[in-house]
Amino acid sequence: MKHNFGAGPCILPQEVFKQAAKAVLDFKDGLSILEISHRSKEFENVVAETTQLIKELLNVPEGYSVLLMQGGASLQFAMAPLNLLGEGQTAAYLDSGVWANKAMKEAKIVGNVHVVASSKDKNYSFIPKGYQIPEDSAYFHCTSNNTIYGTEMFELPNTNVPIVCDMSSDILSRVIDVSKYSLIYAGAQKNIGPAGLTIAIVKNDILGKTNKKLPSMLDYQVLIEGASMYNTPPVFAIYTAMLNLQWLKSKGGIVELEKENILKAKALYAEIDRNTLFKGTCEVEDRSRMNVCFVMNDSSLEKEFLKYADDNGFEGIKGHRSVGGFRASMYNALPITSVHALVELMQNFEEKYK
Amino acid sequence: MKHNFGAGPCILPQEVFKQAAKAVLDFKDGLSILEISHRSKEFENVVAETTQLIKELLNVPEGYSVLLMQGGASLQFAMAPLNLLGEGQTAAYLDSGVWANKAMKEAKIVGNVHVVASSKDKNYSFIPKGYQIPEDSAYFHCTSNNTIYGTEMFELPNTNVPIVCDMSSDILSRVIDVSKYSLIYAGAQKNIGPAGLTIAIVKNDILGKTNKKLPSMLDYQVLIEGASMYNTPPVFAIYTAMLNLQWLKSKGGIVELEKENILKAKALYAEIDRNTLFKGTCEVEDRSRMNVCFVMNDSSLEKEFLKYADDNGFEGIKGHRSVGGFRASMYNALPITSVHALVELMQNFEEKYK
Repeated sequence: MKHNFGAGPCILPQEVFKQAAKAVLDFKDGLSILEISHRSKEFENVVAETTQLIKELLNVPEGYSVLLMQGGASLQFAMAPLNLLGEGQTAAYLDSGVWANKAMKEAKIVGNVHVVASSKDKNYSFIPKGYQIPEDSAYFHCTSNNTIYGTEMFELPNTNVPIVCDMSSDILSRVIDVSKYSLIYAGAQKNIGPAGLTIAIVKNDILGKTNKKLPSMLDYQVLIEGASMYNTPPVFAIYTAMLNLQWLKSKGGIVELEKENILKAKALYAEIDRNTLFKGTCEVEDRSRMNVCFVMNDSSLEKEFLKYADDNGFEGIKGHRSVGGFRASMYNALPITSVHALVELMQNFEEKYK
Repeated sequence: MKHNFGAGPCILPQEVFKQAAKAVLDFKDGLSILEISHRSKEFENVVAETTQLIKELLNVPEGYSVLLMQGGASLQFAMAPLNLLGEGQTAAYLDSGVWANKAMKEAKIVGNVHVVASSKDKNYSFIPKGYQIPEDSAYFHCTSNNTIYGTEMFELPNTNVPIVCDMSSDILSRVIDVSKYSLIYAGAQKNIGPAGLTIAIVKNDILGKTNKKLPSMLDYQVLIEGASMYNTPPVFAIYTAMLNLQWLKSKGGIVELEKENILKAKALYAEIDRNTLFKGTCEVEDRSRMNVCFVMNDSSLEKEFLKYADDNGFEGIKGHRSVGGFRASMYNALPITSVHALVELMQNFEEKYK
C-alpha cells in the first residue's frame, strides 16, 4: 500500500474507488455508468444529489447556485472576469502565488486589474495582510490555498467589495462561511473528486450586471438555468464526486474532517520543526494544512531522502521546482496513519544522518 | 444483457469497461487512475498514445494538431469563431439541424454569420445540397451527422473556403480525408470515449490570423503549445478513450469498422423499408449510419412498441421529441447482433399487429 501525498489529482477514499469501479462495470441493469444517457432519471438524480451534498456540506445559504462544469479553475480564471467585470471597471487581485498570477493574467485580457498586495518578492512564503481594497472594485479575487508554496489564507479581508475565491485546493477541508463570498470556484481534483469536473458556488444577485453577451458555455446564468445540464456533463467525474461527498458526509462532514486535518498538519509541522535535518519554508501563521512544504538544512541530502521515501512507498512528496525540497499534500482522504508514517520516516532518516 | 441503442453517452466495448474499471482500482503500483498525477510519466504516456492513435486512425496529415480538451462541442461552437472569425469577417454556416443552429447562435455572439442553406422547413429530414459558399467567408461550418434527425453528410461541398466540421456523432465511424478540413471537433461521448472529453483536429496554419487576444483556455494556439496539458486534463476520460482507440485499432481500424457500420445500417433500414408497420423519416440518400430514425404508420402503436422493446432489453430507442417515434443509434461498439435482434423484434411485433 502506497502513501499517496500527491498534490493533485490526489488520493480519494478506497471505498470511492471500489464503488466507482463497480459502476464502470454495472451502474444499472448491467449498463456501465459510461454508457448511460445523461438525460436518464438515474443520472439526473446523481446531478441533483451531488449539488445537494455540496450545498449541505458547505452550508450554502439561500440565494446561491451550485454549478457543475468542465475546464478546471483555469477556465474560471477567465469566466469570473467575463461574468463580473463590466466595461471600464477594475477588479482587485491578491497576488499570493503562481495560480493567483494566472488568474490575474486572464482577467487582464478581459478588463482592468489592480493588485492590492503581493508576496512575490519573498517567493510567496506568506499571505499578504493589511492591504486596502478600493471600494469601487468590481470584485476582490483571492486564492485560499497556494498549493505550490504551502500557504493558506485563513482570514478574509474586511470589505464591502464582492469576494471571488479560487478554492481549488482547500475547499471542503475546513468550515467556511459561504455568505461572505460572491463566487467560489474549484477544480474537483483535490477534495471533491476526480479531474475533469469544476464546481462553482455563485451568488445569484451578482450576475446580469455587466451587460455583455457571452458565449453560452461561459455564461454562469445560462449554466444555472440549465441546472448544470446545459450540455452533456462529465458523467463519471460527477458520479465519483457524489460518492466522495457521500463519504465525507458519512465521516461527520467538514466539521469532523477539519479536526482530522488540523491533527494531521500539527503532527507533520511538529516533526519538521523538531527534526534537525528539516525546516519549513513558510511563515508559521500562514502554513497550509493541505500542502506542507519543507526543505533540508543540507540540501545535498534531499536527493537521498527522496529516494528513501520512494523506497518506502511514499508517493508524490517531491516539492514543486519553484520551492524545491518536499511537499506533502494531505487532502481529506489521506489517512492520519500515512502522516504518522511520514513522521517516522523523517525520524529514521535523522537517525541515519545526524 | 441489454442492447444499448442510446444516442450518447453511448455503448463502448465491454473490454474497455473491464480495463477502465481495473484502472480505477489499480492503474500502477496499487494507485488508482483517479489519484495519479497528470504530470506523471505514466499519464504523459497516456496523453501521447491517445493523441497518436487519433492521428493514426484518422490518417491525420502533417501540419495538423490533435487537441484533447473539455467542454464538449458546445464550447467548440464558441471557440471556432473566437479563433477563426476576424473583425468584420463573416462565417458561412449550413443549417442541418438543432446542433448546427446552436453553433450558429454562438458564432453570432462573436461575429457575422451567413446561412448558406437550411432544411429546417422540412424538419431537417435531408441534407441541403447545391448551395453557394461566398468566397470571402472566414470559414464554412457544417455538422457531419445530425443525431436528432438521423441524417448524415457524406459529401463535402467543393470550396476553397476553410471547412470547419462538428463531427461529434460520426467521427471514427467512416474513412474521411482530414486534409479537406481546417478544423474538426467532436465531443467524445459517441465513438471516442466517455463524456467529459472533447477533441479537435486543427490545421496549424489557420491560426493566428484574427489578431484577437483570447482567454488562454479558449485559444487553440495556447492549448497546442501545452500539448493538451495546459491545465489538468480529464485524466480518466482520456485514459478510457485511449482504451477505446486501442480496441478500434485492434479491430482493423476505421476501414473495417466502416464496413461493419454499413452492414448494420443496411440491415436496419432494410427492415424499416420492408416492415408494413414502420417507415423512415429521412431522405434515403442522407440516411445516417449512426442514428436511424423511424416512426410507425399508425402512431398510436408507438407506445406499445416502445414497451415491447423495453421489455425485451432494448435501451435508448425512444426518438427525440422533435421527430418522435424511434431512434436506434448504432455507434462503433454496438454489435451487429444487437441490430439483428432489433430487426427480429420489429418482425415479431409485425406478426402480432398486422
